[in-house]
Amino acid sequence: MTPEAPDGPLKCNKVAILGVGLIGGSLGLALRGSGFAGEVAGWDIDEAVSNAGLQRGALDAVSGNPEDAVQDADLIILAVPISATIPLLMTVVPFLTDDAVVTDVGGTKARIVREAEAIIGGRFVGGHPMAGSEVSGISAASADLFEGAAWIITLTEETRRNNFNVVEEIVRTIKAIPRTCTPEEHDALVASLSHLPHLLAYGLTQTVSDSVPAEWGDLAAGSFRDGTRVAKSNPKAWAEILLDNRDSVLKALDQNITWTAKARAALESGDLSSLTQLLEQAHLARKRFPG
Amino acid sequence: MTPEAPDGPLKCNKVAILGVGLIGGSLGLALRGSGFAGEVAGWDIDEAVSNAGLQRGALDAVSGNPEDAVQDADLIILAVPISATIPLLMTVVPFLTDDAVVTDVGGTKARIVREAEAIIGGRFVGGHPMAGSEVSGISAASADLFEGAAWIITLTEETRRNNFNVVEEIVRTIKAIPRTCTPEEHDALVASLSHLPHLLAYGLTQTVSDSVPAEWGDLAAGSFRDGTRVAKSNPKAWAEILLDNRDSVLKALDQNITWTAKARAALESGDLSSLTQLLEQAHLARKRFPG
Repeated sequence: MTPEAPDGPLKCNKVAILGVGLIGGSLGLALRGSGFAGEVAGWDIDEAVSNAGLQRGALDAVSGNPEDAVQDADLIILAVPISATIPLLMTVVPFLTDDAVVTDVGGTKARIVREAEAIIGGRFVGGHPMAGSEVSGISAASADLFEGAAWIITLTEETRRNNFNVVEEIVRTIKAIPRTCTPEEHDALVASLSHLPHLLAYGLTQTVSDSVPAEWGDLAAGSFRDGTRVAKSNPKAWAEILLDNRDSVLKALDQNITWTAKARAALESGDLSSLTQLLEQAHLARKRFPG
Repeated sequence: MTPEAPDGPLKCNKVAILGVGLIGGSLGLALRGSGFAGEVAGWDIDEAVSNAGLQRGALDAVSGNPEDAVQDADLIILAVPISATIPLLMTVVPFLTDDAVVTDVGGTKARIVREAEAIIGGRFVGGHPMAGSEVSGISAASADLFEGAAWIITLTEETRRNNFNVVEEIVRTIKAIPRTCTPEEHDALVASLSHLPHLLAYGLTQTVSDSVPAEWGDLAAGSFRDGTRVAKSNPKAWAEILLDNRDSVLKALDQNITWTAKARAALESGDLSSLTQLLEQAHLARKRFPG
């Protein structure tokens, strides 16, 4: 991060949220419920969604296009699918004020931050709220989705402190917990903590679906239900995320495949001691994590 | 099942629960809370656990050894780890009344039912409640653990209808839903619906634990938490279950490994279309299942 003396109190008179889905909508609801004094403007590619955001109270105003929404905004939050983030940034860049800060909420960071910095340099500060839901859309949005949740803000050599501070203040305003790391560190972390669990959930679902006759499907107990919950997430969005974070996901996946091969070998050879040891070690490791 | 005319109303004046852990304890609480008119006797290898069962109201009486507990019992429920089930049955067989029925609650059925039938023939009727928890022990027991949950009762050529009816009535009494299949069908079903999810949960936990630095562990969001919840289950008990159901688990695991290999190939080659298709298909399959 570029060292830079703070230049007085932050002023953020207008936030523009581009994309009013689960994340964008919840962000608007949280901001407007927080006592944030500025304006929360919004735009969604689907006009009905923009209007729903307005009606649900997530936005003060909606625009018919993103260029209008960003006019005079101090902070622009790109809350669209990761494949649409950079194209949307390119669309609005000519309409940004000189000191506008841009952030996003995408589940991958290295590529997005690199491409965004190539366009607007340190005025882009990448973000990723570590909260979400397998359901999507403005109808699922809630004002407390981010409360107490980590919100990663990425730092690079280009990041300017004043711009970082604007994003951090908004994150604190909605009661999320700001955490910082590089885009590359972020991608390695989420490959393990989020992307691998999603991939395994889809695979478990398919395996069980292929092997359990329809009339027994209702027997699926807690272990299946919990282990496959996130397979209810949008598959198109997840294929994009996994590919966007391909190298880190492959690395995490290969570690997992190695473990599975060891467990399979112990199982096939009837080696109770090795299998017990593998499960025991994982069981103890689980205690390191919350929940 | 041997065809056999019902011989009048069932009489079950005494149930003996051997093993007063999560399942045995919950069963006692459920029975005693159900208006069941008979006696609920119990024994646990740990005297303190027997006494806790008595104090929590899961049992009317406790015995110092299993031989005493089964005296005059009409139904004996073996609620011990699967490796202890057959040894315990052999211990109590000489002390059973002539028409006593024996059932169990083990998570695997083919071996247990085969071995139990070799000892007491059709007087053994295998059972498996499809409910549980990653926590164990009498302290976690609850009267409503089985309410609305499926309870598989196994049928073989040796199963006698009267004996089956005794088990079925007890299952209905505690508001579980009896379902029937052969021990082999049961083992194939649970290999997919329960054993594979457990194995994957342990593997996911280990992978993430190995790759995420300690200071970032708290970032584990919903997908990790849910996907690894059952890794909190007793690893020794699960190693036994997986090995006891080795062939079916290997089959389910190999199907899963095949899916994962396909997803890995799509990921590595950057094939968005194939990856999307794999996730999409699994996503649709998830809708077949409850929860």
